[in-house]
Amino acid sequence: MAASTLDILGIGNAILDVLARAEDGFLAAQGMTKGAMALIDTSRAEAIYGAMGPGVESSGGSAGNTCAVAAALGARVGFLGKVADDALGRVFAHDIRAAGVAFPTAPLQGGDPTARCLILVTPDGQRTMNTYLGACVSFGEADVDAAMVASAAVTYLEGYLFDPPAAQAAFRRAAALAHAAGRQVAISLSDPFCVGRHREAFRAFVARQADIVFANEAEIMSLYETESLEAAIEAVRRDAGLAAITRSEKGSIIVAGEATHEIAAEPTTVVDTTGAGDAYAAGFLAALTQGHALPECGRWGSVAAAECIGHFGARPQAELKALVGA
Amino acid sequence: MAASTLDILGIGNAILDVLARAEDGFLAAQGMTKGAMALIDTSRAEAIYGAMGPGVESSGGSAGNTCAVAAALGARVGFLGKVADDALGRVFAHDIRAAGVAFPTAPLQGGDPTARCLILVTPDGQRTMNTYLGACVSFGEADVDAAMVASAAVTYLEGYLFDPPAAQAAFRRAAALAHAAGRQVAISLSDPFCVGRHREAFRAFVARQADIVFANEAEIMSLYETESLEAAIEAVRRDAGLAAITRSEKGSIIVAGEATHEIAAEPTTVVDTTGAGDAYAAGFLAALTQGHALPECGRWGSVAAAECIGHFGARPQAELKALVGA
Repeated sequence: MAASTLDILGIGNAILDVLARAEDGFLAAQGMTKGAMALIDTSRAEAIYGAMGPGVESSGGSAGNTCAVAAALGARVGFLGKVADDALGRVFAHDIRAAGVAFPTAPLQGGDPTARCLILVTPDGQRTMNTYLGACVSFGEADVDAAMVASAAVTYLEGYLFDPPAAQAAFRRAAALAHAAGRQVAISLSDPFCVGRHREAFRAFVARQADIVFANEAEIMSLYETESLEAAIEAVRRDAGLAAITRSEKGSIIVAGEATHEIAAEPTTVVDTTGAGDAYAAGFLAALTQGHALPECGRWGSVAAAECIGHFGARPQAELKALVGA
Repeated sequence: MAASTLDILGIGNAILDVLARAEDGFLAAQGMTKGAMALIDTSRAEAIYGAMGPGVESSGGSAGNTCAVAAALGARVGFLGKVADDALGRVFAHDIRAAGVAFPTAPLQGGDPTARCLILVTPDGQRTMNTYLGACVSFGEADVDAAMVASAAVTYLEGYLFDPPAAQAAFRRAAALAHAAGRQVAISLSDPFCVGRHREAFRAFVARQADIVFANEAEIMSLYETESLEAAIEAVRRDAGLAAITRSEKGSIIVAGEATHEIAAEPTTVVDTTGAGDAYAAGFLAALTQGHALPECGRWGSVAAAECIGHFGARPQAELKALVGA
């Protein structure tokens, strides 16, 4: 097996975020489920955008965020995902490359525009997301760069890719290619409702193709259809070699074979939780691929998540290397 | 004279900001003057964008920022400025309208794209701006809505409008219309180098058409070509009925005929100074048009500037009304 030339290869939806503050009543009036991600079409996107407050735009996408944060922590990172050949697509490509992430995916020509996510941030810092997938739906097996997958120590897949149909096949192909090259496969479950929409496919993937699983409490309990966190933890312990369960201000639990590590959250002021889980996965994987022990991987995850939560938007704004002491 | 139906009508360049962190060495390598605003063409914009780090986008423009902040403080506000009929233009229009600001200017069809400003924020929180004016250059006399000017208690003009040639005529027409309707005219000097490029026109405008002048120390000293702040203050005291000179962490000085009021800065953590002067003018004018005394106008300005400096980007992110106690 050749030495890896990438630490992490992320595969996910390539999305521009539009963040705005909103009251809880706005979510209710719009029929939104607080804290969740809903898929929307163009007419719904227009309606929500027309009703929501002034926005701030930044590059997003779950795996894209993870890649940007991991690169800021010194990891060698690549990303695969589909933008359109338009103004927002150029912003996404600029930002992820400027973050130090290799991004070779060709933009979509003449199809749907670049994806965007309308994110409402309530006064408690919770984010509620409305995603118009646009060009992301065109991401398919042909976009999986086999050489890049083979060169990456960990291929990291965002669970949201179970929504666009062509991406599921790309997802499984990437996992097979990674394992054929002797590499590891990580998956983030992304959202409890996304897990609910595709539960059997997620369970099969976790049991057969995932080496590392990232999930929050709601997601892991949704995966195993249980109301007991303990039961969900024991289930994922059987299915995957390594799992990190994030628990907001209660920190995280790392499950590794027989071992369990409880990791504290880092203190922060909650401004906006958008991207907190993505940042945790980034910190964890950046430390793991640099050879750190699991509790230190969890600490890097907590530090990266705390930095993310302390400002508006999912991409890092502070010197993360200094924050983890790397 | 009819009662005003607007408190403030801002006229300025309609710009999308792209903010990124940068080291001082980056500014030096790019030949940028720290803290200043440089006008750039498309090829220079491409080169800077390609070299700069990951960005965050938000609606900007000096007078546009002032309008958004003033509306958040409860003022009735309108804005005139030129965007193109493109994706970034729609973002600008959405944001300023969602902030509660009336924005009737028709977008430019088939010409240059919406203006953008590439802003580098150094570790000390200072912002250095590179503006591609795009569609703003097309703003002219025909875009000055005479009825809106006549209905506004204060017409507020950003000094940057002296750069696009057609806008200067629009500027003087707006001032004449405002005075004909018995209203007040305010001007922000915007930038010491912009003042230097158009010093005679600025001096004539301040002496003959401005009732209220906003400037920082460098701008007011540039206007009067003096290295003495005291001399500049005495000069503006002769020229304008009311002036507010902002002094960063030293607060501001309000000059009103014989009277002088020293206003303290509000405590804040300096994250990004982009828009701080715009926010000060907004707080000042929102309080003034609500009938507050000058020291209270200065305090509102300080509070709005402090909120702005505490986060990335020029548009407000907190509940400004609560912060001023309105």
